[in-house]
Amino acid sequence: MSKKNTALITPRLPRGFVDFEPAELAAVDEMMAKIRKVYERYGFDPVQTPFFEYTEALGKFLPDTDRPNAGVFSVQDDDEQWMSLRYDLTAPLARYFAQNYQDLPKPFRSYRAGWVFRNEKPGPGRFRQFMQFDADTVGAAGPEADAEICMMMADTMDALGLAGKYVVRVNNRKVLDGAMEAVGVVDAEQKLAIMRSFDKLDKFPVEEIVKLLGSGRKDASGDFTKGAGLSDEQITRLINLTGWGEAGSGSAGVANGITINNIRCAFEDSALVSEACDELEIMELFFGAAGYSEMGNERIKIDPSVVRGLEYYTGPVFEIQLTFPVTNEKGQEVVFGSVGGGGRYDGLVSRFRNEETPATGFSIGVSRLAHALQLTGNLGTEPVTGPVVVTVMEKDRIADYQQMVAELRAAGIRAEMFLGSSKNMGKQMKYADKRNAPAVVIQGSDEREGGIVQIKDLAEGAEAAKSITDNAAWKMERPGQYSVPRGEMVEFIKQIPAVAAWMKANG
Amino acid sequence: MSKKNTALITPRLPRGFVDFEPAELAAVDEMMAKIRKVYERYGFDPVQTPFFEYTEALGKFLPDTDRPNAGVFSVQDDDEQWMSLRYDLTAPLARYFAQNYQDLPKPFRSYRAGWVFRNEKPGPGRFRQFMQFDADTVGAAGPEADAEICMMMADTMDALGLAGKYVVRVNNRKVLDGAMEAVGVVDAEQKLAIMRSFDKLDKFPVEEIVKLLGSGRKDASGDFTKGAGLSDEQITRLINLTGWGEAGSGSAGVANGITINNIRCAFEDSALVSEACDELEIMELFFGAAGYSEMGNERIKIDPSVVRGLEYYTGPVFEIQLTFPVTNEKGQEVVFGSVGGGGRYDGLVSRFRNEETPATGFSIGVSRLAHALQLTGNLGTEPVTGPVVVTVMEKDRIADYQQMVAELRAAGIRAEMFLGSSKNMGKQMKYADKRNAPAVVIQGSDEREGGIVQIKDLAEGAEAAKSITDNAAWKMERPGQYSVPRGEMVEFIKQIPAVAAWMKANG
Repeated sequence: MSKKNTALITPRLPRGFVDFEPAELAAVDEMMAKIRKVYERYGFDPVQTPFFEYTEALGKFLPDTDRPNAGVFSVQDDDEQWMSLRYDLTAPLARYFAQNYQDLPKPFRSYRAGWVFRNEKPGPGRFRQFMQFDADTVGAAGPEADAEICMMMADTMDALGLAGKYVVRVNNRKVLDGAMEAVGVVDAEQKLAIMRSFDKLDKFPVEEIVKLLGSGRKDASGDFTKGAGLSDEQITRLINLTGWGEAGSGSAGVANGITINNIRCAFEDSALVSEACDELEIMELFFGAAGYSEMGNERIKIDPSVVRGLEYYTGPVFEIQLTFPVTNEKGQEVVFGSVGGGGRYDGLVSRFRNEETPATGFSIGVSRLAHALQLTGNLGTEPVTGPVVVTVMEKDRIADYQQMVAELRAAGIRAEMFLGSSKNMGKQMKYADKRNAPAVVIQGSDEREGGIVQIKDLAEGAEAAKSITDNAAWKMERPGQYSVPRGEMVEFIKQIPAVAAWMKANG
Repeated sequence: MSKKNTALITPRLPRGFVDFEPAELAAVDEMMAKIRKVYERYGFDPVQTPFFEYTEALGKFLPDTDRPNAGVFSVQDDDEQWMSLRYDLTAPLARYFAQNYQDLPKPFRSYRAGWVFRNEKPGPGRFRQFMQFDADTVGAAGPEADAEICMMMADTMDALGLAGKYVVRVNNRKVLDGAMEAVGVVDAEQKLAIMRSFDKLDKFPVEEIVKLLGSGRKDASGDFTKGAGLSDEQITRLINLTGWGEAGSGSAGVANGITINNIRCAFEDSALVSEACDELEIMELFFGAAGYSEMGNERIKIDPSVVRGLEYYTGPVFEIQLTFPVTNEKGQEVVFGSVGGGGRYDGLVSRFRNEETPATGFSIGVSRLAHALQLTGNLGTEPVTGPVVVTVMEKDRIADYQQMVAELRAAGIRAEMFLGSSKNMGKQMKYADKRNAPAVVIQGSDEREGGIVQIKDLAEGAEAAKSITDNAAWKMERPGQYSVPRGEMVEFIKQIPAVAAWMKANG
């Protein structure tokens, strides 16, 4: 078969996909372990679903149900049924819960970290494969379940070292649903357009959102986005809800000057808005009692401008906003923004089961959070410590060098024999440098006859190189280089600081 | 969009895909951590490639290059290019190495654990998504690189507790390549058919292999498999190589009575066979010097019956065989068999780069190895310890119960408040049982007024239940149930053995 490929193939990845290097992987692993620890302490258990689901099981989540490859990656199985790579971790959970209903404890708390796929146009920071870290409680209807998820998110941010640098913002989708109903919006597509417009409040100034709610918006490049088609009066009533409009005259407890009470008064004819306000007040009470909304250290706050773009939310919605400033591509200073969000979705499991199944959950964008932690210095970015490299000086003594490596490894030291074809010393040293090796072991014929090995402590050598500028002095002093009896090699290497540090971390 | 779905959707997975539960996930994680530790100590670093590759980059690995959905899952991108879900972890590594050639240390040692996908008919133990754990050295040509991989596999098996229960079997593909050449086989398809026949030596008796090499084989169900079409003389010469034929009259060092020297003599006209024998002898020397082939504890051995079915191997090939007996579906006692294999593949990277790039590696089948470890008792299968459950007795005191949970979590104890709608005590206790909770906290109005909580140690209660059969005595003794002052709740719960054990393991 390979004979057909006479021309060389260019080694490259499809657009929107990336490789991950050791230092990045170690940093993300460390971050995920901290998140997992908080989730486990809260009583959540891991579950892992496969990458494929039947497309019909994802149905509600698909951007376009008639074209199963728009938005998601889909393939047709032997029996003609469409299956798709998961688009998020919520749809598979709904399927899993419904499928295993009889056996699962109820309420069912679970967490899942996994790759998800979007068949969309990639861009800077927008990938077609990315990792989400979700936690969900299925089968719990009360706002205490939503409140718990919010508190767990706050505790997670604290555990990651972000105390004082985030806020979990909480709203209730029923506020907007009730308000849309009250101003006479009934069309599902129009509702979705309104939600998506509001969801851009953290990106655009309010005038632009007004355009999106109305006839439409032309961006700087001249591209036109069709608006939701609301009247001026409808726009005013809805935008006031967020605290960004003129009615935002309230004071206590709520961001942007609008209170739960303002909202209640503005839509006193709406039973749904009133229900939403009741739930928000109960959650506010829980946050206060548990110390999450103290003045000056407000870790969770009610904020009517939170919408979340997904159609399926039915109650409380929330997101983590990182509040520290960063500079955007245009050179402007902006807050870092959202690293995850979630909410209550009571209708999803009932697509599979003929009864209401309440559920609430949260999803963290792993890469985005890792990026934030790197900016704040809370995530290691140091290169991984490489192995001690045993150099090969005499080609016919491979078994001897292997023996040295075996002794080092048996003592718990990361070590390897140089496996390249070149026995040139310079090349082997260059390799050790590239691997970030803490030390190099050398035994040529002279050392062998003397029963010794040369050991170079590379960090010590590099440090000394900064102060010794004279080549002759360097050769005389040979900083970081030691002659050690062969029998003491392992003990000597154990004492090298970078080796000892690796052993401690990987014991 | 959801309005179209009026009928309920059956919650189910596409064939060949499975969900994983907490206990399984914990067990596999523990196993993978042990493997990773050995690989890191050997100087291998992690790399992670995405799930998709351009189909042309997988080319040589595809079972059928003309139909990109046969064998692998493929989708066509916007620009009409085919991309495929990875089929193994070797093809992506070859692409990664070629793409990052300038920046990578050479030789390049890496390990990768990840899901791979096969668009094939699933069956018992055959999934369409499964995990592999690979380690490879790219850029090292000598047999010392292959030998190191074999030793690392043996050390990995030891680290997993399988000492004495496995053997790493080693052969060289050039033996068969040279022998096929010597008996006049030139057609690539015929060569592949021969390799695949030999690869079944651990499944079928030698008479059946002879049929597969000749005109073909009819199985018990009457299905006919076309043979490789060799003559009797060709078959005899080739099958003798494996030690299964009549020529196997040698003695020392090699399984099934055939020695490297027998092989050398049988094909003394073949330069390739002679080269292969040289390499095998060098590797045997390394294994001996490092103590891997001691009589009575032979962890690695040269075994001419190892073939490995993949076409791309060019030199040493190896596999881990677990030697303990299991009963197969027909009730027969057989050895557990292979849990992974690998070999040298010098031609793969050169599909991308205009020069030879030697490479060697190994792949472990994660699920199969986990299954083996469960059989030998080397992998925990205990249910995960659940959280301490704080029951909800008075609906208007949710904030108080949440406060208790917060105190427990702050002390590092896994804990949760019952979030179900029912405040029925029996249901809450049943939930705690299902979660495998170590303890339950109860505070109704009586306890609240007395400033106490009731704490039930569920393990102690269950233990006592075995000896107390009298219902009245049970009610009087209330084994495992304690009244504790509210202020001492956390300290008391910390002392419960199952709680203390969880804290120790998850500190």
